[in-house]
Amino acid sequence: MMRRDRFLLVATLTAIFSADLYFILLPKLRSLRQTSGQTCTCASSNLSLPILEGIATPQLSNWTYASLQDGTTISGNVDIGSKLEKLFAHPLYNIQTPALGPEEKLLQVEQLIEYYKKKVSRWERHMKLYNEAAALANVTVKEQEIIYDPDASWLKFHLGINRYALYSRDDPAILQLLKEMQNMTVVSADYTQDEKALKGACDCTQVVKPSGHHLKLALKLRNFAKVMFKPMRQQRDEETPEDFFYFVDFQRHNAEIAAFHLDRILDFRRVPPVAGRRVNAAGEVLQVTHNEDLRAVFFTSPANNTCFFAKCLYVCKTEYAVCGNPDLLEGSLSAYLPGLSIAPRLSIPNPWKRSYTFTGHEEWEVNPFYCDAIKELHPYNSGNRLLNIIDMSIFDFLIGNMDRHHFEIFTKFGDEGFLLHLDNARGFGKHARDEMSILAPLSQCCLIKHSTLLRLQLLARSEFRLSDVMKESLKRDPLWPILTEPHILALDRRLQKVLRVVQRCIRRLGENEVITKDFVKSTAGTQTAIRKKKAR
Amino acid sequence: MMRRDRFLLVATLTAIFSADLYFILLPKLRSLRQTSGQTCTCASSNLSLPILEGIATPQLSNWTYASLQDGTTISGNVDIGSKLEKLFAHPLYNIQTPALGPEEKLLQVEQLIEYYKKKVSRWERHMKLYNEAAALANVTVKEQEIIYDPDASWLKFHLGINRYALYSRDDPAILQLLKEMQNMTVVSADYTQDEKALKGACDCTQVVKPSGHHLKLALKLRNFAKVMFKPMRQQRDEETPEDFFYFVDFQRHNAEIAAFHLDRILDFRRVPPVAGRRVNAAGEVLQVTHNEDLRAVFFTSPANNTCFFAKCLYVCKTEYAVCGNPDLLEGSLSAYLPGLSIAPRLSIPNPWKRSYTFTGHEEWEVNPFYCDAIKELHPYNSGNRLLNIIDMSIFDFLIGNMDRHHFEIFTKFGDEGFLLHLDNARGFGKHARDEMSILAPLSQCCLIKHSTLLRLQLLARSEFRLSDVMKESLKRDPLWPILTEPHILALDRRLQKVLRVVQRCIRRLGENEVITKDFVKSTAGTQTAIRKKKAR
Repeated sequence: MMRRDRFLLVATLTAIFSADLYFILLPKLRSLRQTSGQTCTCASSNLSLPILEGIATPQLSNWTYASLQDGTTISGNVDIGSKLEKLFAHPLYNIQTPALGPEEKLLQVEQLIEYYKKKVSRWERHMKLYNEAAALANVTVKEQEIIYDPDASWLKFHLGINRYALYSRDDPAILQLLKEMQNMTVVSADYTQDEKALKGACDCTQVVKPSGHHLKLALKLRNFAKVMFKPMRQQRDEETPEDFFYFVDFQRHNAEIAAFHLDRILDFRRVPPVAGRRVNAAGEVLQVTHNEDLRAVFFTSPANNTCFFAKCLYVCKTEYAVCGNPDLLEGSLSAYLPGLSIAPRLSIPNPWKRSYTFTGHEEWEVNPFYCDAIKELHPYNSGNRLLNIIDMSIFDFLIGNMDRHHFEIFTKFGDEGFLLHLDNARGFGKHARDEMSILAPLSQCCLIKHSTLLRLQLLARSEFRLSDVMKESLKRDPLWPILTEPHILALDRRLQKVLRVVQRCIRRLGENEVITKDFVKSTAGTQTAIRKKKAR
Repeated sequence: MMRRDRFLLVATLTAIFSADLYFILLPKLRSLRQTSGQTCTCASSNLSLPILEGIATPQLSNWTYASLQDGTTISGNVDIGSKLEKLFAHPLYNIQTPALGPEEKLLQVEQLIEYYKKKVSRWERHMKLYNEAAALANVTVKEQEIIYDPDASWLKFHLGINRYALYSRDDPAILQLLKEMQNMTVVSADYTQDEKALKGACDCTQVVKPSGHHLKLALKLRNFAKVMFKPMRQQRDEETPEDFFYFVDFQRHNAEIAAFHLDRILDFRRVPPVAGRRVNAAGEVLQVTHNEDLRAVFFTSPANNTCFFAKCLYVCKTEYAVCGNPDLLEGSLSAYLPGLSIAPRLSIPNPWKRSYTFTGHEEWEVNPFYCDAIKELHPYNSGNRLLNIIDMSIFDFLIGNMDRHHFEIFTKFGDEGFLLHLDNARGFGKHARDEMSILAPLSQCCLIKHSTLLRLQLLARSEFRLSDVMKESLKRDPLWPILTEPHILALDRRLQKVLRVVQRCIRRLGENEVITKDFVKSTAGTQTAIRKKKAR
């Protein structure tokens, strides 16, 4: 532990040094050069990438080299024009995580391989029985060949999950996983567990239903990767109607995709990989499902398109069906996390959750000192939890998601673990609206991680402008354009508003109270900043 | 009876003479004048209004004089520019109905007045009890003053219903009723009987639900007129999506309004009066309802508009709510027919109804000789029923309504009675589509009433062009424009298609077989044309 502490200390100092260099020294240098009459442009200046020595030396991220479209790795120089590559090459994005002990990884290799093998043999047994039954019933079944691949990218993704994030910045398996989600053969389709739990029942006494209830399906790829498919329900330029409550807003497949990219750009890495894909509703769902209920909700529309609808969750009318054109159906595919049996998760109500009624208000909406009460409560009174919630509120504010009623954590990592940013389909609903109440955790607690703030400041600079790097990142998805221009530009405006809220906090309380040095968050023995401040 | 027979014979001959004069002699005269080099325009020629003597002398309709907006009667000359007035002044629209015996009227005055008085005293009793209870419960109730008016227009409408039509062409009470529906104070609001029968239950095992299930409310005006309110659910320019089945199409308030106007222009008079109105969802629904269930579905939207939703018919989610702006909610108001207790009706399945499944086909869709079988069946084997169904199919084809699964008749008038064209809200869904299958009764049976054909031919002429008279008629509604231009123009195109189908029938079978002299339909003793033809 001592060795790692030292390592982290060095890493932290290096990062702070680079940040200072970047934010304080360089601008001064530049203004000096500008005032002296020179007009050089500093966009491609190597000065923004200080060469640091030692264990924290920035490593240029693999992300920036591999093209998602063809998968080939371009070695050599960074594309000078790419702001995204410059961003990922920045020291702030290159603080290395120390070598991880077994207790810091979510899963062990043997455990996962065992789990995978069991799944495969269960599939084979099931298919044998199913095909026999189908032959007797004279049903045609599309025979799907599966592969057992111990090098599968989804396995690597699951094995890479650790106490710091869902994946590491330079993990090539994530790129590979995105590619496979986009192209690999689908061997089966089914309802998700949520939907199965409802068993098609309608509880119409409930007016307000916070759970995600829209059409979504679990697809299995031929190497046994499991993904959640959310089909497109509305056009890119359709905005959430004025009269909609956040809890009845549509779910948007493009918001799911965009949220993954934004989360990665913010370096949170708390959203599982999401890729866009045009799924064949006939060939990749209807013909490969073994679920009779799912097959029963398919129909051919008057325009001869293949359609299906939710089997009576809350609605069961065909007017809410989705239809292919004639079979192809655009949607988002999100990688599943490891099964709950091997990686249990806890779902925790958000202390800043909204009232899911027409008229009610939660305490945080009416009590400006709400955060003081929260800070007294375990686990918000120590550690990272509160800072993580503030990170999440910044993320949600940027995407405009008001529906974060719960968050999940991996049980294994306990209260110090990062928060999963799952289910972001209600983001990007109104580009012109900046819902400041989403930022309540930040504005009421006046706390922010130093690392988060530095990255937000970086993304506010024209060299890395958030909208530009988002656009560049989204371009790699086959469903580009994922977001309309106004939604992308809204990110810059909202980022400024986040920074202004932080600025106001600093003016009121001082930098030391607001900015929490979190680079040492990973050292188990270190006292948290909050506790230290309280002691002062 | 003998005297009336003679009277009708004279009326018929006069009408046929005027029609011949108009369609055969006049065009010849005109072409003669044109070929002789003259260029006079005949648009305002008095020749189109032959002066006929005797009991069948055309009377210019009141409709054309009274302005719906101010209610004043313009006496004197017909507006030269008004095609609608010219149409209603045409002899074909001025065949007088003979004096009606009591058995030919739907209701007797004493009976209806008795019914009205009972309703009023029940209301007063109810209100007394309700106000007492409300005072105890400390609930504020908007006190509504009602009036007992034995001259109320809705009473006159109900009293005017006879075996020939819902109202007579020149009944000023209809204009008055439309005006009152647009302006009179609403004193109470409730669910319709349909919705009450469901008791908020959801039967989600049913995928296909042919019944009208959308938001609609029964409103009571202060003179006790009862109207059905269908709020606007979509914009005028929104078209039915390609993938929608007819049975899940939206209900359109503007289609209800437009259908009433078209039915009147076709001189069917089988649609109860419909007027557009901006209803105050707060003041005219929420604050005046005594139904707790209805009050419970109201809420204020995030944009501060008053909204409400269907109490779980098939959907119960607020995203399907309708919202005012902030309170005003555009919709259609249809006059209620007399209550079933005093004027029972029968609901009869349409022999050409569609399959309400995703894949099924009805016999008429696959058997080109379907009509031959229908003609053998009572009551289609004699009388007007089949001809009335063909009229209805022409009406439905013009509005593009595929959802006519049932029709209703008044029990009192038996099988010879006219068909009610109720519930037209699924018309006008796709302006570019002419759904020829709606015309199956006409194209398969190759029969049409002479009177209907003459009027269709009249409306196909440029002097009376259907789209022009529709536009003129719709302009009188406060919600103008009711239909978009493409929907109005589609009427002309569809009318041509109806006439072409008739033309094809005539070429195949001859005029005598196809065109049924129906001007004598009202003489009880006369054998029907169909029976005569069969005997031949």
